[in-house]
Amino acid sequence: MARNFTLFTGQWADLPFEKVAELAGQWGYDGLEIAVSGDHLDAWRWDDDAYIQDRLDILERNGLKVWTISNHLKGQAVCDNPIDFRHEAIVGPRVWGDGDPEGVRQRAAEEMKLTAKLAQKLGVKTVVGFTGSSIWQYVAMFPPVSQDVVDAGYQDFADRWNPILDVFDDCGVRFAHEVHPSEIAYDYWSTRRALDAVGNRPAFGLNWDPSHFMWQQIDPVAFISDFADRIYHVDCKDTKMRMGGGRNGILSSHLPWGDPRRGWDFVSTGRGDVPWEDSFRALTAIGYDGPISVEWEDAGMDRLEGAPEALAFLKKFDFAPSSSSFDAAFKQ
Amino acid sequence: MARNFTLFTGQWADLPFEKVAELAGQWGYDGLEIAVSGDHLDAWRWDDDAYIQDRLDILERNGLKVWTISNHLKGQAVCDNPIDFRHEAIVGPRVWGDGDPEGVRQRAAEEMKLTAKLAQKLGVKTVVGFTGSSIWQYVAMFPPVSQDVVDAGYQDFADRWNPILDVFDDCGVRFAHEVHPSEIAYDYWSTRRALDAVGNRPAFGLNWDPSHFMWQQIDPVAFISDFADRIYHVDCKDTKMRMGGGRNGILSSHLPWGDPRRGWDFVSTGRGDVPWEDSFRALTAIGYDGPISVEWEDAGMDRLEGAPEALAFLKKFDFAPSSSSFDAAFKQ
Amino acid sequence: MARNFTLFTGQWADLPFEKVAELAGQWGYDGLEIAVSGDHLDAWRWDDDAYIQDRLDILERNGLKVWTISNHLKGQAVCDNPIDFRHEAIVGPRVWGDGDPEGVRQRAAEEMKLTAKLAQKLGVKTVVGFTGSSIWQYVAMFPPVSQDVVDAGYQDFADRWNPILDVFDDCGVRFAHEVHPSEIAYDYWSTRRALDAVGNRPAFGLNWDPSHFMWQQIDPVAFISDFADRIYHVDCKDTKMRMGGGRNGILSSHLPWGDPRRGWDFVSTGRGDVPWEDSFRALTAIGYDGPISVEWEDAGMDRLEGAPEALAFLKKFDFAPSSSSFDAAFKQ
Amino acid sequence: MARNFTLFTGQWADLPFEKVAELAGQWGYDGLEIAVSGDHLDAWRWDDDAYIQDRLDILERNGLKVWTISNHLKGQAVCDNPIDFRHEAIVGPRVWGDGDPEGVRQRAAEEMKLTAKLAQKLGVKTVVGFTGSSIWQYVAMFPPVSQDVVDAGYQDFADRWNPILDVFDDCGVRFAHEVHPSEIAYDYWSTRRALDAVGNRPAFGLNWDPSHFMWQQIDPVAFISDFADRIYHVDCKDTKMRMGGGRNGILSSHLPWGDPRRGWDFVSTGRGDVPWEDSFRALTAIGYDGPISVEWEDAGMDRLEGAPEALAFLKKFDFAPSSSSFDAAFKQ
Amino acid sequence: MARNFTLFTGQWADLPFEKVAELAGQWGYDGLEIAVSGDHLDAWRWDDDAYIQDRLDILERNGLKVWTISNHLKGQAVCDNPIDFRHEAIVGPRVWGDGDPEGVRQRAAEEMKLTAKLAQKLGVKTVVGFTGSSIWQYVAMFPPVSQDVVDAGYQDFADRWNPILDVFDDCGVRFAHEVHPSEIAYDYWSTRRALDAVGNRPAFGLNWDPSHFMWQQIDPVAFISDFADRIYHVDCKDTKMRMGGGRNGILSSHLPWGDPRRGWDFVSTGRGDVPWEDSFRALTAIGYDGPISVEWEDAGMDRLEGAPEALAFLKKFDFAPSSSSFDAAFKQ
Amino acid sequence: MARNFTLFTGQWADLPFEKVAELAGQWGYDGLEIAVSGDHLDAWRWDDDAYIQDRLDILERNGLKVWTISNHLKGQAVCDNPIDFRHEAIVGPRVWGDGDPEGVRQRAAEEMKLTAKLAQKLGVKTVVGFTGSSIWQYVAMFPPVSQDVVDAGYQDFADRWNPILDVFDDCGVRFAHEVHPSEIAYDYWSTRRALDAVGNRPAFGLNWDPSHFMWQQIDPVAFISDFADRIYHVDCKDTKMRMGGGRNGILSSHLPWGDPRRGWDFVSTGRGDVPWEDSFRALTAIGYDGPISVEWEDAGMDRLEGAPEALAFLKKFDFAPSSSSFDAAFKQ
Repeated sequence: MARNFTLFTGQWADLPFEKVAELAGQWGYDGLEIAVSGDHLDAWRWDDDAYIQDRLDILERNGLKVWTISNHLKGQAVCDNPIDFRHEAIVGPRVWGDGDPEGVRQRAAEEMKLTAKLAQKLGVKTVVGFTGSSIWQYVAMFPPVSQDVVDAGYQDFADRWNPILDVFDDCGVRFAHEVHPSEIAYDYWSTRRALDAVGNRPAFGLNWDPSHFMWQQIDPVAFISDFADRIYHVDCKDTKMRMGGGRNGILSSHLPWGDPRRGWDFVSTGRGDVPWEDSFRALTAIGYDGPISVEWEDAGMDRLEGAPEALAFLKKFDFAPSSSSFDAAFKQ
Repeated sequence: MARNFTLFTGQWADLPFEKVAELAGQWGYDGLEIAVSGDHLDAWRWDDDAYIQDRLDILERNGLKVWTISNHLKGQAVCDNPIDFRHEAIVGPRVWGDGDPEGVRQRAAEEMKLTAKLAQKLGVKTVVGFTGSSIWQYVAMFPPVSQDVVDAGYQDFADRWNPILDVFDDCGVRFAHEVHPSEIAYDYWSTRRALDAVGNRPAFGLNWDPSHFMWQQIDPVAFISDFADRIYHVDCKDTKMRMGGGRNGILSSHLPWGDPRRGWDFVSTGRGDVPWEDSFRALTAIGYDGPISVEWEDAGMDRLEGAPEALAFLKKFDFAPSSSSFDAAFKQ
Repeated sequence: MARNFTLFTGQWADLPFEKVAELAGQWGYDGLEIAVSGDHLDAWRWDDDAYIQDRLDILERNGLKVWTISNHLKGQAVCDNPIDFRHEAIVGPRVWGDGDPEGVRQRAAEEMKLTAKLAQKLGVKTVVGFTGSSIWQYVAMFPPVSQDVVDAGYQDFADRWNPILDVFDDCGVRFAHEVHPSEIAYDYWSTRRALDAVGNRPAFGLNWDPSHFMWQQIDPVAFISDFADRIYHVDCKDTKMRMGGGRNGILSSHLPWGDPRRGWDFVSTGRGDVPWEDSFRALTAIGYDGPISVEWEDAGMDRLEGAPEALAFLKKFDFAPSSSSFDAAFKQ
Repeated sequence: MARNFTLFTGQWADLPFEKVAELAGQWGYDGLEIAVSGDHLDAWRWDDDAYIQDRLDILERNGLKVWTISNHLKGQAVCDNPIDFRHEAIVGPRVWGDGDPEGVRQRAAEEMKLTAKLAQKLGVKTVVGFTGSSIWQYVAMFPPVSQDVVDAGYQDFADRWNPILDVFDDCGVRFAHEVHPSEIAYDYWSTRRALDAVGNRPAFGLNWDPSHFMWQQIDPVAFISDFADRIYHVDCKDTKMRMGGGRNGILSSHLPWGDPRRGWDFVSTGRGDVPWEDSFRALTAIGYDGPISVEWEDAGMDRLEGAPEALAFLKKFDFAPSSSSFDAAFKQ
Repeated sequence: MARNFTLFTGQWADLPFEKVAELAGQWGYDGLEIAVSGDHLDAWRWDDDAYIQDRLDILERNGLKVWTISNHLKGQAVCDNPIDFRHEAIVGPRVWGDGDPEGVRQRAAEEMKLTAKLAQKLGVKTVVGFTGSSIWQYVAMFPPVSQDVVDAGYQDFADRWNPILDVFDDCGVRFAHEVHPSEIAYDYWSTRRALDAVGNRPAFGLNWDPSHFMWQQIDPVAFISDFADRIYHVDCKDTKMRMGGGRNGILSSHLPWGDPRRGWDFVSTGRGDVPWEDSFRALTAIGYDGPISVEWEDAGMDRLEGAPEALAFLKKFDFAPSSSSFDAAFKQ
Repeated sequence: MARNFTLFTGQWADLPFEKVAELAGQWGYDGLEIAVSGDHLDAWRWDDDAYIQDRLDILERNGLKVWTISNHLKGQAVCDNPIDFRHEAIVGPRVWGDGDPEGVRQRAAEEMKLTAKLAQKLGVKTVVGFTGSSIWQYVAMFPPVSQDVVDAGYQDFADRWNPILDVFDDCGVRFAHEVHPSEIAYDYWSTRRALDAVGNRPAFGLNWDPSHFMWQQIDPVAFISDFADRIYHVDCKDTKMRMGGGRNGILSSHLPWGDPRRGWDFVSTGRGDVPWEDSFRALTAIGYDGPISVEWEDAGMDRLEGAPEALAFLKKFDFAPSSSSFDAAFKQ
């Protein structure tokens, strides 16, 4: 169908933006899903036209476009509780500031608003990101928490994100939340509830990334059909299940990525268990025509081998839809 | 093994025969399984030698051969009850005539006899087709039907097809029924019974097409072994199951092809669930050396991409059988 | 919870109503789901007060109540196409009349209206039944039918049933359609579409009978949750799957009930594959407090043994819901 | 084998201890696994001989014994981080004090030491409980945490529990950790690592409770064999999986117990998916001869119905082992 | 259906026959399947009328009958190769003699002939037993054996058993071979071949014992249907699979019965994985009306508990077949 | 990772060594795993320097190396009982001699010692092979054998192999036993026991060949992790399961390789069910850096097509491991 394929730069943040662009261009990607992080993209410079132009020039020099930018790490800090050393390591000094939790949350929210403005400047319609969650910490349900606490968590999400989404609306940009553990929406029913919590406003949609659906046994294909009008972006990250022996568990024992005793692990797109072909057919069926972004992560494989392989793999599903009707063909 | 690969022209009936031949030749097919339908092949011209020669010339010009012709649509009308607007759309005006059901059935039977003669003229030994069925309409068993009604249906099949098969015998041609819903034989035990109904006469065999076995959970490999002496032809059509969520049902809700809510769908050969390698090994084991025909149908993919891809896919199983004995190799 | 358990009299229509009542009373049933059929209940006598009283007296003498009546067989004829010998055998002479198909449909519709009036007289709030379908015959999709034909089928259903449902509304009675092959709604998505076809009017709901869900691989538990506000009645009929060997097919080869080569069969409630406990918990969760009716059918077991066994089996799931909060218990 | 069956009193903490004893005695239990919580048992009164005697008298009056006591809630607070409102609700005012987290942890540790002394006084050899964990909050691995943080968590566990276990050794009592989410050991490999962290000292063993193994897909039977020398106690709590539709997820969407959209739920022992018979055979194989304790929890069933049912269910597996050799029987 | 239930005495050979009869009678068995072994039954006394009468008297005193006798151990020695210490332990001194292998085989064959005569004297129509096999030792296919060796093994079986079966024919008794590892027929295709090897003569049929089908993944229900005319007797022995962890293997590692590391084990009838209800329905379908014999073996359970439990379990499937036609019931 | 890929010459023993080397070199293999058998390699010429050099020269001429030699067939005879015509066919006249079983075993043991010396001469560190077993013949457990007999079998293995392993130690060479039916270690628990039987001495390790794990349902990936320090060599042989229909059994009915009725069969590496990618990742995780050897066997495919295909297939898993940390990449 000549879909556009992009590479998400988050897992390449240790390389300069220009280097990532060079690699992606050589491998044949059509564009980048640029992480608003470190050297790649800086939301606080949204109104620096020269900076914006420089980013676009780098893309153009490498034959790339941009349809989506992402800000997972600062989105994470908007609702999170607690805010701690983990956030200090990822949000950058500007948002971290003195590290006072509520201050961090406020500054993270501010950056998300700026990210919408940045997107508008770049001509980008979609911002992918995380929301954070004040109640993720209670997911195990022990020590017990009452339903009131859970309800308050969804309310906190709405209270913190609605003002951000107002800015998105002003900018003509949509937020695509990546359904993911640690976030307000991490599975099917929590996605339903999160959408309800913000009144199903169009500014808030979803980034379909099936990697965490696999181990939670959420059907990634049905997810596309059921949330058809909210699939704003697609991240292709793959997961391999390694269950079945009764010793590797679904929570993976605090073991590091790449350890074979983990119950599941991220692998190069195409080497895992995601039903890619059915997923792509479902994306076609709902009329999704945005970019297909490769989020490449595999602790057991060199990314320089993996990223081009993933692109080649996914292109196998980029076939043209049928242009004839078989029933018509039967008629004489 | 250097098997011969053919393309079934039924799903290409909207294109002129010469155009289909051209495409198939370019893609590297060895021949065509020509549908006796529309412009492709006309059974009523069986004794028009110039016409016959013209068809053969078209094949030859494109480097193609023909081992099998097919007449599904008129075969369908031989036993069907009711005969209605659906048949009018597929049997052509000559068979439809005034649309009187019994008249349609008689003319369809007549065309099947002519198809045997046509095959003989073309030097073809096998005719693939449907039988129709007067009792398919009762498959749901409600409102209740007695076993007598079912028995009568198999008898009707025998009464209508035996005279046709007599002509096949006269012509030295065999009929290969495609086991398929809507037909007298649509699964394992109905195939057993249909074969019994015509006294297991050699003129009546089977076209192995696994696409409808998948959703009925019939084992396509065991089918080859169990009906080894009746596998007269092979059609490679693939099916993808999309069950598992408990909402998509096996009967597919009257939904059109390509709708992701269907419980199963046809897909380009090699992209579905048919166990092709085991099937080909079983075909080798029973000594099947006829053509391997691609029946290509996929409502989500352009057929111009799919037909050559399917050919390449199937050729992976066309390896030479073992020429050495491992036990011998062990001996010193 | 002290749910009420009833026996559906349809499979006992060869016995006089009083005899069935006697048996059910002795076995400990709380009531009957009376089939409007033969001697059991006659819709055309809906305004014969003595007749009504007589039926109620029979129940009372046997310690039974009635919450639901059923009229599957005449409902079937409302939309069916074709109308044929199968209907003649089940609708009774009054509806069959001269057998002219449209006349049969009209008289069947008339009886369905009378059934609503009869229910009102009996103090019953729910009528279970079938709808019939003009497009069931096309479920196999071959010979091909266009989507227009399918659309017209749902429209025909709406056109024929809306006037009947108007009478139901007038009588304060609800119709509970049994999702079933041969009907307008036979699986998940066809149920969605049928509900839409009548504008989701409250007069039209569902009789949850999981027996045909099993072989279609429809999840009976999720069905309860998803159609929570339309589950008007519950029929407990059980099905045993006998697939797995690759020879028994899902369509069951026109084989009679009880034949071990069928891919599935009806069995005494509790001896099949329906997940009864999860189903009952789901019914509790949606607040269903109507009768639990045993629809007993098993071609391999004597019904006089089976019917009391089924009652005992189902009562195991009739436990009281929790009256304490475990979280509260943890507090000191 | 005449195993002893006990009822764990944790889920009955809202009832006075005497009332629980009365119920358990009437139902035929052999003893209680008494929760050190609220009115049931108070660790701070360990050296009050009259109090101890009073507890034993209550048991004796109801025909009960005690082999194990449990202190889950205070064990939880020993390592937990954060300490918050959830702990305030469960540890009691004495341990909570001013709520300063480190103070709470210290007082919880103190109570665990006293629990060992209490056990000694009661003539009990085993204390079941939780450990808490400072790193459970990082189980989702996002925002990222380094392996150093995980390592420090196991060290923190060892540092805090070794002094407690010293007191256990002094008292001749063993601690049986219940493998459970929110704890230092929650699956197979984290159990291996926790045992290593305390040098595999005999004072620290395991309470086998399979309920959280099911949804993590840990094999409860292999767990018994592999940790044979550390199975110090057995809690029979059952779990029902409700996955399979691709919408209910393994993390259960923050939904309350009893909600049918949860991916799994606790159910009355014997109504879930735990392979009880194989588990009991494995317990016999490793020579476990301690009590079999029913930890009853089911948000959809009244506990007064469930607790005696669970006892009857488990007794089916308390058969005598074989006393003859079949090979011997074959000899003539 | 009032089937007759018997207890196979083989696993009780360490007890005197009268004791076994006493136990079986008390438990409610209808008869015994008596092992021709040790004290239970002696084939060499077949013409000692007093002895015969004594056996029958013991049965009668305990309210028992006999429909079948068994001689597994001597049947084993007819074809076995090698003959070694294992046979010495089971065939008894008369057959063992000087232990010369061919002599043992001849005397074993002689005893099998006498067993037919004994059966005739007892009024018994069926003898259950093993055949032995000269090629079982080559089942692993390594070191390699040629197909000639395998062919010779089936021929050896035919050569040795045909003369025995001639005596069976003379006596009006049938031999029911128990399909079992170590025998000439141990799975589906080896059963087909063994039947062919003796020309499908009616004297040679099968004892359906599903216990070894489970781990070989042979479908016990389809086996009944496919070999319908050769099911001469039924032994109900149950097997529990303990695979799934990837460590327990299908060959069970030379581990003793009852070891939880075995991949499968025999368990008390009703506690394993055999699909008993479907099996009984299939037996009804093929018209089997012989005895249902309990072959009880469970290394983890006392046989005195297990044997009566197994009887009670199996009686649940002894329901009467349907006496009414549901289709008929639908008619008005 | 630039692993070295070798071809095992055992299945090519009918070709001269030079021919095999030529083929392997052309196909791109890095070396050979040379079978000590026939013309390929002769252990008895271990001290013939010219012979050794000649073998090395052949390798060098074809661009090949050798890291491993194998002696399965003579290893088989070390412990086997019985010794019979099968061994005569595979051990060669020098070891067979007069065929006296104990003499054969002794000479086989002698050759295994010489094989260690030969390895040393060739600069090879690993010898792959079989052990044979005196108790494999009792694996079916009928006629019964006591645990004493099994114990004696493991002792016999230790007694016969320890002197051989002493020579291995002297030569600085390790023996890698191929876990395989007919051997002392054929599954998971028998491997544990065999390792224990020789005191877990480092001279005795394992050749990981997953082909026989598949049908025994042993997890080949967990096997790598669990026996990490004993995986001395890797043979890539693939197996296709053909179960599922309930007629093909796991023991395969004495049917020859390639027969579609077998429950499983060897197939060209990459066309079977072995989870190759997970296996390779596990090999990387345990630090295995030895050769990857293709043991090619497929009775349905020409080896000249298969051997190069297998090499290409396996190279897909020879990717470089990750050289960056994703967590690091997230930091700004």
